[in-house]
Amino acid sequence: MTVHRALLAAAVVLAAAPLRADPLPSWNETGAKAAIIAFVEEVTDPASDRYVTPADRIAVFDNDGTLWSEQPLYFQLFFALDRLRAMAAEDPDVLTSDTLKAAAAGNLSAVLSGGEAALLEIVTATHTGLSVPAFEAEVAEWIATARHPTTGLAYDRMTYQPMLELLRYLRDEDFETYIVSGGGIHFMRAFAERVYGIPPQNVVGSAGTTRYEVIDGVPTILKDPGLLFIDDKAGKPVGIDTHIGRRPIFVAGNSDGDFEMLEWSTAGEGPRFGMIVHHTDKVREWAYDRDSRIGRLSEALDAAPEKGWLVVDMAKDWRTVWPGQ
Amino acid sequence: MTVHRALLAAAVVLAAAPLRADPLPSWNETGAKAAIIAFVEEVTDPASDRYVTPADRIAVFDNDGTLWSEQPLYFQLFFALDRLRAMAAEDPDVLTSDTLKAAAAGNLSAVLSGGEAALLEIVTATHTGLSVPAFEAEVAEWIATARHPTTGLAYDRMTYQPMLELLRYLRDEDFETYIVSGGGIHFMRAFAERVYGIPPQNVVGSAGTTRYEVIDGVPTILKDPGLLFIDDKAGKPVGIDTHIGRRPIFVAGNSDGDFEMLEWSTAGEGPRFGMIVHHTDKVREWAYDRDSRIGRLSEALDAAPEKGWLVVDMAKDWRTVWPGQ
Repeated sequence: MTVHRALLAAAVVLAAAPLRADPLPSWNETGAKAAIIAFVEEVTDPASDRYVTPADRIAVFDNDGTLWSEQPLYFQLFFALDRLRAMAAEDPDVLTSDTLKAAAAGNLSAVLSGGEAALLEIVTATHTGLSVPAFEAEVAEWIATARHPTTGLAYDRMTYQPMLELLRYLRDEDFETYIVSGGGIHFMRAFAERVYGIPPQNVVGSAGTTRYEVIDGVPTILKDPGLLFIDDKAGKPVGIDTHIGRRPIFVAGNSDGDFEMLEWSTAGEGPRFGMIVHHTDKVREWAYDRDSRIGRLSEALDAAPEKGWLVVDMAKDWRTVWPGQ
Repeated sequence: MTVHRALLAAAVVLAAAPLRADPLPSWNETGAKAAIIAFVEEVTDPASDRYVTPADRIAVFDNDGTLWSEQPLYFQLFFALDRLRAMAAEDPDVLTSDTLKAAAAGNLSAVLSGGEAALLEIVTATHTGLSVPAFEAEVAEWIATARHPTTGLAYDRMTYQPMLELLRYLRDEDFETYIVSGGGIHFMRAFAERVYGIPPQNVVGSAGTTRYEVIDGVPTILKDPGLLFIDDKAGKPVGIDTHIGRRPIFVAGNSDGDFEMLEWSTAGEGPRFGMIVHHTDKVREWAYDRDSRIGRLSEALDAAPEKGWLVVDMAKDWRTVWPGQ
């Protein structure tokens, strides 16, 4: 009977204060996980003097290198190259320059040596001249069928399981989660809701100009070649202000492109949390920081200790990197 | 006992199917109110074949002339003129042109004869060179203290009670409500949450360029003189796409500036509702449409019958115009 009574007592205790499931099971039991949970518990506890009302629980996440991988090239560029090849297969005349010819031929080093101008040319050639829904359908189809050149995985299988858990954890605690990325806004919207649970209106990104036109009686929004906004570096706080209009209390990035967003967000009054995903795991993902052409992390890494930003060591702090790994 | 039993039976019935309070008490019992309620009940009834999931219940509202008055001038221009006068009182050198001098002297006809260029000059002089929070504080202070030149009312007392009820009704039915206005995004955010219950991230408007800068160690977002985006006419569907990324199913406007937003939204598949607030009430508000310099309504009024847009006749359909009237 003693055992029964003990079980009964345990059951009563469990019923009164149910054990919470671990919100971050893919994080190792290190300081990073503890710091995140401590912050969330503090700002969501009405009895805490650091309590934050739900309306102000704005959490923003960079995408490339923070929510999914970004090596050896931003995934959006792989999409652009694939789409350029498909377009050229239908009509070789679309390759109107040496840059586009090199890109379609898969000569990546020639493309990269052309710098930002070359990349912009490729993006413009592949991201404009069609309606927004048609473009998003192209991206969705690509995500469903394309495979990453070195891992052979679908690109949406290279999202970070610990970050997916973090997004869900924050939403469960009445945070509003946003993407704030240098990536294209329409590109990301094509999968952000399905993959991250982040709806279109919570995606802030770089944007080309679009144009409203009634075509054969059909009201249409067309993607034009112009550039509206680059959501990177100092553009990130600006994009957050324009789009969200509130200063985030939680911000996650992984590169110097996130420096200003981290700086501005965490300089606000009251509790703030800044975190940097440090790519330290050359076994399960990639290891890179100061010398990387993609996702360079130097200035923000240097500033982190003084600014109080959490630097997440992917190799040590993450039990899993990609889902199912 | 019969009475008691009848009361008991009534109580049981009420408990099972409680009488709903009228969601739109400031609307007269006309076809307009019936059409709105029929639409909302249809798209929120899971048993209806026109049911719309909450995620797609996007409702967008123009502001000037749709949620609050706009005569004899857009209220934001009154703010600009008041601010210009205050700036000139401190430093007359801010009046660097004849337009600004005329504006500060209250010579409205001279200002209006200068057309859009004059208005843009006044807005630029009064809406830039300070941080976003400082600007929003200026607007909030103005709203709290300024009075409309002809009614003597505070500007936020000239919001439309029937529309405040409609916003709340839609939110109660799990719609997400947005402002989509030609007005300035920071101007509207200064009061939209308090007055309309619409948070900053749900305000889409015209925007000047802003700039991120660390000033004396303080990360700051500054309002610059450049123009980023005009959220009017064909810019409205573009603004909705950029900001929200979903096609609204409910759209309300009052002028030809809302034509394209109405056209695009209601051309989408599935149930859609377009409405136009027609200013027909010269006793309680203003009566104007085709010949008005502010809020001209002609093309959209002509298109309404064919497009199936509800034209709300303010004089007939609204029991109250402004709160407390």
